[in-house]
Amino acid sequence: MNINQHYLELQDSYLFSLVTKKVNAYKEKNPSKEVIRLGIGDVTLPLVPAVVEAMQKAVAEQGEKSTFKGYGEEQGYEFLRQTICQYYSEKKVSLSDTEVFISDGAKSDIGNILDIFDIDNTVLIPDPVYPVYVDTNVMAGRKIIYANGTVENNFSPLPDENIKADIIYLCSPNNPTGAVYNKEQLESWVSYALKHDAVILFDSAYETFIQDESLPTSIYQIEGAEKCAIEFCSLSKTAGFTGTRCGYTIVPHALIRNNTSLNKLWLRRQTTKFNGVPYIVQKGAEAVFSNDGLQQIKENIAYYMENAKLISGTLKELNIWHVGGENSPYIWLKCPNDMTSWDYFDYLLENAQVVGTPGSGFGSNGEGFFRLSAFGERKNVIEAMERLRKLK
Amino acid sequence: MNINQHYLELQDSYLFSLVTKKVNAYKEKNPSKEVIRLGIGDVTLPLVPAVVEAMQKAVAEQGEKSTFKGYGEEQGYEFLRQTICQYYSEKKVSLSDTEVFISDGAKSDIGNILDIFDIDNTVLIPDPVYPVYVDTNVMAGRKIIYANGTVENNFSPLPDENIKADIIYLCSPNNPTGAVYNKEQLESWVSYALKHDAVILFDSAYETFIQDESLPTSIYQIEGAEKCAIEFCSLSKTAGFTGTRCGYTIVPHALIRNNTSLNKLWLRRQTTKFNGVPYIVQKGAEAVFSNDGLQQIKENIAYYMENAKLISGTLKELNIWHVGGENSPYIWLKCPNDMTSWDYFDYLLENAQVVGTPGSGFGSNGEGFFRLSAFGERKNVIEAMERLRKLK
Repeated sequence: MNINQHYLELQDSYLFSLVTKKVNAYKEKNPSKEVIRLGIGDVTLPLVPAVVEAMQKAVAEQGEKSTFKGYGEEQGYEFLRQTICQYYSEKKVSLSDTEVFISDGAKSDIGNILDIFDIDNTVLIPDPVYPVYVDTNVMAGRKIIYANGTVENNFSPLPDENIKADIIYLCSPNNPTGAVYNKEQLESWVSYALKHDAVILFDSAYETFIQDESLPTSIYQIEGAEKCAIEFCSLSKTAGFTGTRCGYTIVPHALIRNNTSLNKLWLRRQTTKFNGVPYIVQKGAEAVFSNDGLQQIKENIAYYMENAKLISGTLKELNIWHVGGENSPYIWLKCPNDMTSWDYFDYLLENAQVVGTPGSGFGSNGEGFFRLSAFGERKNVIEAMERLRKLK
Repeated sequence: MNINQHYLELQDSYLFSLVTKKVNAYKEKNPSKEVIRLGIGDVTLPLVPAVVEAMQKAVAEQGEKSTFKGYGEEQGYEFLRQTICQYYSEKKVSLSDTEVFISDGAKSDIGNILDIFDIDNTVLIPDPVYPVYVDTNVMAGRKIIYANGTVENNFSPLPDENIKADIIYLCSPNNPTGAVYNKEQLESWVSYALKHDAVILFDSAYETFIQDESLPTSIYQIEGAEKCAIEFCSLSKTAGFTGTRCGYTIVPHALIRNNTSLNKLWLRRQTTKFNGVPYIVQKGAEAVFSNDGLQQIKENIAYYMENAKLISGTLKELNIWHVGGENSPYIWLKCPNDMTSWDYFDYLLENAQVVGTPGSGFGSNGEGFFRLSAFGERKNVIEAMERLRKLK
């Protein structure tokens, strides 16, 4: 009997626990100071009325014999899969509903998708990045190489023809940097993947935050992507579903490796190890895409994007280098005066009582950088920005 | 780029699709005949009022800024973990709430738990059994050996000291056979596991159907089990959550292998690859264990158990060998006249218009056996039993 030894190779993540520890220590020493948190990646606005109404109705249905729903298809109800196809058709992407898999969120599927790939594949992961990409591959014992995000490439690394990767993670708009790939940049990734027989795992969890209509909101807006990419999306940030749990994964029928359909492999994985998303939640998710739902979530996103604008506007004013905030809820800044990420964290906490997230927690290229989030309350964002201005 | 080749070793499961195909073909040829399905493993009674009320309230909370819940702890809200500890204390099992992990159902966790174990471990699986145990291990490329369920051992196989297994699956009350291990039998499994350093994966999804108070409803009622067993439970059958999705997994702190806490490994797995169960669903699950909730689900279980009694009583009357039905919603019968499972399926469909599940779909020892389920409607069960009686 042995445990999976790869788990012992995982680095403990102290990022958010250390943030909490430092904030609590500061508050204890300075009980009169009001600390503002701009570090959180969670939403703060509640579910929109269209979603609440749909879920109330669904709960009532589950309490009546004539409308009760037991097991549904593991890949999700057809009503929701077709709704998502309709949503994609408005992006000029044509999908079949059997290419859509409803999930309990992008995080689960991004981790679980690795089941269908060989352990010997080499994985290319941007640095800095959402830590789950790295950890799930360490757990499986896969070889990981990194694509470096830097100031020079605006934290949007491009493929290197000299490097051979089999599985490529892309996240656009990016967490933590807020950087967004344009059409040409994504074309170069798709072209690399097609040439090298690689599969792109495209995380588009923040796609609804894209304001610039020339930027792709789905990898399938790039020609040929259906032959080399799986797309993961989530309602967590789109519609405030972080505590309600629903997302979806697109595995095109055209995606074939070793003469095998990856769609069929994923269907087999999901029917064997998953039992679908609650009916109630799927009805809530369907309502997100109704006319009322879309209008209501648009207002919430506008609220967060106004916060982002206030943050990036202030950073511009203060001449602090940054990306993000225009088409994403995250702003990624270079710590002033060459401070390290944690030094800047301490400096902001001590001098402005503003909490952000140290960039070094997202990979070695994150050292010297810092993430601010637009998911807070307007008045707190305004107050935090005033404090930043007073710091100079 | 290679796919996980082990997926190609999976046997396609035609069981339920072939059942559906045959039933549809029969109905097309015999439109006037009323077919009764006693094959389903899904519940038919709706959610109880206590659960519906709790979820209605939780949905409303999610629509208000002051009560909105975003990300929760991946392992579940403390209120639910503590409620489950309380439920176990009534079983005379003492748990800490950090030993309880809330899941979206037993199926997910039973598949995903394999992540924390080495690929080279040998797995012992009863035959016949719930196909997920086998398929998830085939997917990972583990060596599988079988514990044979037979008429002689009442489909409750016991450990064989000459066989070395690292991971052992037990399911009691069993799906598909309905057989339940008694205390002494479980003691022999725990003793084997402790001696051989094995880990028991104990699936107790049907524990609430146990009527005989001398039978264990948790593996932890056996001394020493906390050092060798993980328990998986689900509200799917307990409280009709098949479409609402909530279960829980117990990983004791005392369970150590390679000097490593399996509880910590599972926590790391879940925090990395899972984002928790919807708040709304966790509030519904909490209500299952309230006084009202427990009373209401007890009535539903009594309804199903009365169905089971009608079925097993009829089989006794007809002198058909069977197990199950006294402490489980499944009845496992030996096909009369040495018919194969599919022959008996066809025979029942043609001559009584009753649909069950061929035992051969659950493993080679299931050949010649047949599963009937008590989850149907009372009037249909009564009618089906009358038709069986007329067959002799």
